[in-house]
Amino acid sequence: MYEVELKVPAHLEAVRARLEERDAAFRGRVVQEDTYYDAPHRSFPETDEALRVRRESADGGDESRLTYKGPLVETESKTRTEIETAIESGEAVDAILTSLGFEPAATVRKERERVRVREYTVTLDRVEGVGEFVEVETEAEEGEIEPAREGAVAVLDELGLDADDQIRTSYLELLLEE
Amino acid sequence: MYEVELKVPAHLEAVRARLEERDAAFRGRVVQEDTYYDAPHRSFPETDEALRVRRESADGGDESRLTYKGPLVETESKTRTEIETAIESGEAVDAILTSLGFEPAATVRKERERVRVREYTVTLDRVEGVGEFVEVETEAEEGEIEPAREGAVAVLDELGLDADDQIRTSYLELLLEE
Repeated sequence: MYEVELKVPAHLEAVRARLEERDAAFRGRVVQEDTYYDAPHRSFPETDEALRVRRESADGGDESRLTYKGPLVETESKTRTEIETAIESGEAVDAILTSLGFEPAATVRKERERVRVREYTVTLDRVEGVGEFVEVETEAEEGEIEPAREGAVAVLDELGLDADDQIRTSYLELLLEE
Repeated sequence: MYEVELKVPAHLEAVRARLEERDAAFRGRVVQEDTYYDAPHRSFPETDEALRVRRESADGGDESRLTYKGPLVETESKTRTEIETAIESGEAVDAILTSLGFEPAATVRKERERVRVREYTVTLDRVEGVGEFVEVETEAEEGEIEPAREGAVAVLDELGLDADDQIRTSYLELLLEE
């Protein structure tokens, strides 16, 4: 399975109004604080890897996860290896990584809201210090990537957004560019 | 907080008998499988650090933990910084560490039984390929390390064990010496 994903800058208020008109299924709002680490023995920007501790707060409670992202294996669809596990304490993992010589490089804070539109997940992100974005994503088999991408373009269109505005830069990179 | 810990070789059957005479509170038996990692950028044997993934099986279910142990801050009592957190998946953390260049160095398997004696945790360990041991440990504030150590010596004495037999070598080192 491949993840097909389109991300564009957006005015969330206008997008939310369009979604409400369509009776889309809002899936709740969370606050995510993602800390990315530099390694003591490798340059992650050069190896195109990332190591992240995510602390997520929602109405249902808090949760932390440790995630490793490997280099891109397929550029067009942004496909990469991802290994993730829930952790009891983000603070403890931060302290372990820091003791090992890893250093917090940047922290991305965002408010995230998820909405289901047909087989697509639409994500409304307000990223602190960066801006507002909408992501449309779904999973597709290898032979179905192009139709899945066309469907995502259609969803963006219904929300008044243009797939030509697509940005492939991560929030972390956008934040570091500021 | 510092961990104050004394470990001596022991015949567990004799120690268990003494504990039963005293109506000590047995806290159940677990099987622990500890994998220790080598770092890509430091020699942990030289820096006296350790990074461990523990998978523990008990009647109540399985549980995994990630632990970092820092260098000794007080040699006599084997006091060191320890940072630990529960993790959802030991396999995922193993895969993340391996992707980052850490390598499994050795795996220590043991049956462990815990008993509470006053403010001390007494641990009866049968270590695969190494032998049988009793550990007496407690936590202490920086100024309370010495009295805490004396209390641990007294607990060993009550169990027919001698603090002079103390070994400072870890199970990992004992296993690697075999």
